[in-house]
Amino acid sequence: MGRRTPSDLLAAARDGDRAALARVLSLIERGGEPAREVGRLVVRESGSAATVGITGAPGAGKSTLTNALLDVIRAADQRVAVLAVDPSSPFTGGAILGDRVRMGDHALDDQVFVRSMATRGHLGGLAVAAPEAVRVLGVAGFDWVLVETVGVGQVEVEVAGQADATLVVVNPGWGDAVQAAKAGLMEIADVFVINKADRPGATETRRDLERVLDLAGVKGDDRPPVCLAVGTSGEGVAEVWSAVTQRLGHLRSSGMLDERRRRRAGDEITRLVAARLLERAQAATDSDRAADLADQVAAGKLDPWSAADELLAAHAEAAPERG
Amino acid sequence: MGRRTPSDLLAAARDGDRAALARVLSLIERGGEPAREVGRLVVRESGSAATVGITGAPGAGKSTLTNALLDVIRAADQRVAVLAVDPSSPFTGGAILGDRVRMGDHALDDQVFVRSMATRGHLGGLAVAAPEAVRVLGVAGFDWVLVETVGVGQVEVEVAGQADATLVVVNPGWGDAVQAAKAGLMEIADVFVINKADRPGATETRRDLERVLDLAGVKGDDRPPVCLAVGTSGEGVAEVWSAVTQRLGHLRSSGMLDERRRRRAGDEITRLVAARLLERAQAATDSDRAADLADQVAAGKLDPWSAADELLAAHAEAAPERG
Repeated sequence: MGRRTPSDLLAAARDGDRAALARVLSLIERGGEPAREVGRLVVRESGSAATVGITGAPGAGKSTLTNALLDVIRAADQRVAVLAVDPSSPFTGGAILGDRVRMGDHALDDQVFVRSMATRGHLGGLAVAAPEAVRVLGVAGFDWVLVETVGVGQVEVEVAGQADATLVVVNPGWGDAVQAAKAGLMEIADVFVINKADRPGATETRRDLERVLDLAGVKGDDRPPVCLAVGTSGEGVAEVWSAVTQRLGHLRSSGMLDERRRRRAGDEITRLVAARLLERAQAATDSDRAADLADQVAAGKLDPWSAADELLAAHAEAAPERG
Repeated sequence: MGRRTPSDLLAAARDGDRAALARVLSLIERGGEPAREVGRLVVRESGSAATVGITGAPGAGKSTLTNALLDVIRAADQRVAVLAVDPSSPFTGGAILGDRVRMGDHALDDQVFVRSMATRGHLGGLAVAAPEAVRVLGVAGFDWVLVETVGVGQVEVEVAGQADATLVVVNPGWGDAVQAAKAGLMEIADVFVINKADRPGATETRRDLERVLDLAGVKGDDRPPVCLAVGTSGEGVAEVWSAVTQRLGHLRSSGMLDERRRRRAGDEITRLVAARLLERAQAATDSDRAADLADQVAAGKLDPWSAADELLAAHAEAAPERG
């Protein structure tokens, strides 16, 4: 049997071959020409998957809540995939919390697919790879794709914000409401979940969040509901999901979802253009001359701007822009 | 009185004018030609400031610990500046936790300077602006610059990792050790602090962290010590600082600090080159044609790679690379 092409793998994934699906996602993760070929293949197949971003500080219980949401979605007999977006770490490689462990009770359910994704260090990687992976999962016939991020850094918030609707998970305690605001989460939240709501302070945190939303002047249908839930017991999780689907209904009927998808496509193109240019930047700064300039900057003999100028000029001569 | 130039402002900042120093830092934050001029002015003045990155999950108590460290540093009669690095958020603008509130007991101490810094949305901004700000604070005569990040996302970890030494703050609870590893913090830690160590589980977390370090095979002088501290009471904070200074001593004597600074200078140049190229990417994707391509991608009529190609080609024709 010969080596299977991206096209073969994608066809197999469409027919329910999970190993093939995993391999297609690995191609996307690694980037380069095969990723690009997958991108060209999937774009015309309009998968109907709706995406829900799930973000919040590390330790907020996002994975537990995601697993509880899987129960709710499966009870409605819908197919669901989870894309867990990890920051790049060569040291852990995402191995500590493996995909099998994560799936819990759903490990034997072939209507559930869980996949961790890391950037493995290439710049702009996740923001470029995640939307592509979501499209592949749509082609593979999943009704829902939950995109869960590990942290609340700039990249993670950006990735979660690319979903059709975004769920922001916080915990009881005023600090978290402030931190959520500071991390830019207020702008991307469609639904707030105060997880671990059986702990003291849940109602105060809800009040604090509502107050921050008041201050921001977010009103009516545009205002994200604030739900209380306990991911470990499943309490309130059906209500969270109902808030998400209601919100999506509003986004759809108001035309806001189409608007979001257009904006997202624009952002994705910008990111691809940027990724290409970043590759060039790295090529431009991987030389003996670049190392020499770095020594001069470290020694306080040269400012970094001038060093960057010289490398850009040298790079332009060596490899002029092509179409 | 005429408008003061970056050079005037920098001279005033060197003489202890705090308002001038704040204005120079604003110039850097905003970027563009004035930032560049500041960059050229400061590079040749070898400020002797040592930088310490302080990072960890939101809510880990980094600000409280930083304030407790200020007490220790001031007790040794040294001048110290804090650069609090916030993710970009147009909604909060860093206003919720203002610099004055942050300074606490040190608000009237003119040997302490605290400044929040945000990117205000421009790509690559913080990673480019933070090292420049550190140099300015060095020129202004601070012995120490503490660079505190709000989150543990990709950008935040990168910024904290640019310091001479990096302090990673976690809390009691196994989850945090896993999260720290997942967020890529193990690679950048010079000293671990288990803050809020008066809570249950501190010794278990220390054991877990030591085990992760064992697994990573980090030994001898290269192994980050794990300290216990309570930021709110100041307990253990002097020991944390002593661990930091010892570690810096080792980095200095072993030549590793010079190596780090060289690598950092190289990274900074790469980032500047990338930032320049990103500006071009944004210019290339801000057009009617780009909006039209985004519509096609959103409608599933075109793949984003082809859209990016077309924009790159059009951009190359319109504005060829210059030195």
